[in-house]
Amino acid sequence: MKNRVLLLLLLFVTPFALAQAQEKVNDELNALIRKHGLELSQAGEIAGWMTDVYGPRLTGSPMLDKATDWAQKTLKEWGMKNVHLESWGPFGRGWELSHFEMHATAPSYFPIIAYPKAWSPSVKGSGEVVYLQAGNEEELAAYKGKLAGKFVLFDTIRVVTEGFEPNARRHDAESLLEMANAPEPTPRPRRNYNNLGNTNFNQILWQFLADEQPLAVLDRSYKGDLGTVFVSGARTAEGRAQQEGQKVVPQVTLSVEHYNQIFRNLQRGLPVTLSIELQSAYTNPDGMEHNIIAEIPGTDLKDEVVMFGAHFDSWHTATGATDNAAGSTVMMEAARILLETIKESGIKPRRTLRLALWTGEEQGLLGSRGYSKEHFADFPPNSFTPQSLKPAQKSVSAYYNLDNGTGKIRGVYLQGNAEVAPIFRAWLQPFKDLDAATLSMSNTGGTDHLTFDAVGIPGFQFIQEPMAYFARTHHSNMDNFDHLVVEDLAQAATIVASFVLHTALRDEMLPRKPFETEEAKKEAEKR
Amino acid sequence: MKNRVLLLLLLFVTPFALAQAQEKVNDELNALIRKHGLELSQAGEIAGWMTDVYGPRLTGSPMLDKATDWAQKTLKEWGMKNVHLESWGPFGRGWELSHFEMHATAPSYFPIIAYPKAWSPSVKGSGEVVYLQAGNEEELAAYKGKLAGKFVLFDTIRVVTEGFEPNARRHDAESLLEMANAPEPTPRPRRNYNNLGNTNFNQILWQFLADEQPLAVLDRSYKGDLGTVFVSGARTAEGRAQQEGQKVVPQVTLSVEHYNQIFRNLQRGLPVTLSIELQSAYTNPDGMEHNIIAEIPGTDLKDEVVMFGAHFDSWHTATGATDNAAGSTVMMEAARILLETIKESGIKPRRTLRLALWTGEEQGLLGSRGYSKEHFADFPPNSFTPQSLKPAQKSVSAYYNLDNGTGKIRGVYLQGNAEVAPIFRAWLQPFKDLDAATLSMSNTGGTDHLTFDAVGIPGFQFIQEPMAYFARTHHSNMDNFDHLVVEDLAQAATIVASFVLHTALRDEMLPRKPFETEEAKKEAEKR
Repeated sequence: MKNRVLLLLLLFVTPFALAQAQEKVNDELNALIRKHGLELSQAGEIAGWMTDVYGPRLTGSPMLDKATDWAQKTLKEWGMKNVHLESWGPFGRGWELSHFEMHATAPSYFPIIAYPKAWSPSVKGSGEVVYLQAGNEEELAAYKGKLAGKFVLFDTIRVVTEGFEPNARRHDAESLLEMANAPEPTPRPRRNYNNLGNTNFNQILWQFLADEQPLAVLDRSYKGDLGTVFVSGARTAEGRAQQEGQKVVPQVTLSVEHYNQIFRNLQRGLPVTLSIELQSAYTNPDGMEHNIIAEIPGTDLKDEVVMFGAHFDSWHTATGATDNAAGSTVMMEAARILLETIKESGIKPRRTLRLALWTGEEQGLLGSRGYSKEHFADFPPNSFTPQSLKPAQKSVSAYYNLDNGTGKIRGVYLQGNAEVAPIFRAWLQPFKDLDAATLSMSNTGGTDHLTFDAVGIPGFQFIQEPMAYFARTHHSNMDNFDHLVVEDLAQAATIVASFVLHTALRDEMLPRKPFETEEAKKEAEKR
Repeated sequence: MKNRVLLLLLLFVTPFALAQAQEKVNDELNALIRKHGLELSQAGEIAGWMTDVYGPRLTGSPMLDKATDWAQKTLKEWGMKNVHLESWGPFGRGWELSHFEMHATAPSYFPIIAYPKAWSPSVKGSGEVVYLQAGNEEELAAYKGKLAGKFVLFDTIRVVTEGFEPNARRHDAESLLEMANAPEPTPRPRRNYNNLGNTNFNQILWQFLADEQPLAVLDRSYKGDLGTVFVSGARTAEGRAQQEGQKVVPQVTLSVEHYNQIFRNLQRGLPVTLSIELQSAYTNPDGMEHNIIAEIPGTDLKDEVVMFGAHFDSWHTATGATDNAAGSTVMMEAARILLETIKESGIKPRRTLRLALWTGEEQGLLGSRGYSKEHFADFPPNSFTPQSLKPAQKSVSAYYNLDNGTGKIRGVYLQGNAEVAPIFRAWLQPFKDLDAATLSMSNTGGTDHLTFDAVGIPGFQFIQEPMAYFARTHHSNMDNFDHLVVEDLAQAATIVASFVLHTALRDEMLPRKPFETEEAKKEAEKR
């Protein structure tokens, strides 16, 4: 009788239990990870230094070098192994801002909330304002000889509407369900913040501006208001502002209210004068930049690697807090949690854990792509579609990335990799109480996991709470420590640490999506 | 049979019709008012000049004088009569800002979003930061001799939380019902923005600071974030910063993020240095200020007056858009609508219509109180409770005020005057489609209708949509034209014009609340 009950139990329970048990979850390790990640979190401390003291971290800037030194030192102190820099490049020149002020002086005085675009050269002076209204070469010709010593208004007014919607939000069931139900990701182009719209006319326009030598070209924050200004890099006629020898017109982005006021007074026919003083310097003559790499060595499978990382660089008008001290903090903190967990449990990771803090992300994932080119694949010139793979491409089980602001993890973008779904589902199960449960077949664009995805290595970005990332902090002058939510960073570090360790302890590497290089495709076509 | 139906109809309809008809509403005039106020609105044009060109309008400043000239000229051009200035004062000295910049120079460079408090003197220099942590004289003594040439941090960190609530809102049924059901108003003290908390220790503290001569005393915006900074006047040990001969310590309010960053780095034990350059001048040696008065003459009851107005002055870090170009625009526009309506209809107001644009409101309703003292009552020294009344107090039927930002009118605060309720109810009836319908027995504090209420003249502030007034624009650096909602101003001007004209055409003056002067009270006690 007993046996028959057992048999019945087995009959009913086993398929379910098997399905659940397929992917191992180590509760003991998760308990330690939670202890070090949630109860003994260092996320606020790490993020504080990375922003208040070592921000901003513009690629190429002396401040990024200081931040890099601090990160290496900190990782070594914690006990990370093989802490080192890996060069990529040449990136071009660095840029350092040492003084900026701008004022309206007529028809009335006011200090202007404004920021130079990165790589703008020094300029000092005062002058009138001219609105450059030219959609073609003929219209442009009318301004010939008229812009020297002037401030050029480059934008029309942007109408500001009152903020009836909150700046920040968290996901709700509706928005999470939408992601859970999302179809396969569709490739989408990455927006290049550094050199917008280099159409033919734009090239002519920026060459004209470089020749005419206005004091500065002014635009207004393309979104945001009330003192929040979104700013990135200077535009040029051709190439990138950071290229050695590139002639850059001083470019300044104004708060929308101040820009609109100046524009309206010009429209009223009033004389509008401004003054500017911008002191900047180009730095870093060798043009090479560096990613920070640090490891926790594996054991029986130590030649296989689990990578986790985030970009460490930022734009320049704040301290790069949500973009991306948040992600870098979470990844450093995950490393620290892993070190503590390994120490306390005695359980060693089978695969090697490798932390990467990338640079040059803001100019086009340059650091991670440099790393990929060094380790994973050969690329044709000016392409990020690999021609052929290097052996190390096979040895990376997964890359986990964080770069969508300060919001905690609500799940994972599967990046079109359906086979990892049951694995991640099992690994997320213990973190349901921390609100991380959703898997989406979709992806997010624009950050370093794409570099791995592009060479056939499973690369994942986590689903994060949106918070005020796109509304207020991403690439803005207000991307400061105060807009980090430290408890959210602690939650994210805890989950990342668990994912990394479970990936490292697994019998198999993570399943990969079908992937073919350009060479393999050509071979296949021949057959 | 016909007669019996008529009789029945009369029996049932008349009491209701009478109640409704008690207060006359002139539909023909309202149609013209709507045409000129809504279809042919000039509110955006007026507000644009008042802010972009003639803002800020700090009381005593040369810019306020220019704005005053413009307003007078504009009112005369429209055809207003008896346009003139009426002096009040002495107010003290004016203040004009001609340059301001502030920078963090260590541990890293960044331009600081900050504003000098009004009446701060010129200062230029760079130096270290010291946190002044003193709650009593003994603790203060520890800083003796240590503050000269330093920047004094005056506040602790303010924790910033993410903006899950919108900046701006409009009323909904719930908030309007709350006002409709509100009890009699309770008197509440007006917050004095100019000289906060002059307790004994504060006097000692500010005298100490004046003696020690730091470069500047720094605090952080007491609310707001993301680039919005709330700033008003400088503090002093005794008296007001605008008083001739008053020694003022340079005082600067920083954006909360920048202040917090400086504060945290100081807590980390890092050297923090800043630089400042503030150029300001004291102006207006005679110390007298002016209200702007303009009239549309009445006819058979021309010695009686209907007043409508708003304060014209502002704080200094933006262009005083919602506080209170909004109200001043609405009142000027109401005057223009009235002129057009009178011209087109041929109907003349019986009572005289008098527009008043007050100054010195931000320093304590000083302009309207000066006007009241001149025309309506005698006051004991340093008191706003009238001792005895002047004859003109009897001749003002009502005063209508607007000073709660850019939001349209949703009703009227009755200021405890129950007898005006049915009158205002009737006058609002035609504007139900414009969402103005609520009467509240409550009041709002803090603006010039209180001056009239204090001398027994019916003074009313309209109920307005809250918008982002208290969250973002009121006394902030972002109180700019872009945060005006021009359609809302047009709606308000339309309703104000109708109220003013109906008040002027009424057979009787508006009913008054019971009111006794101090003298009358004493007389009553004697009896």
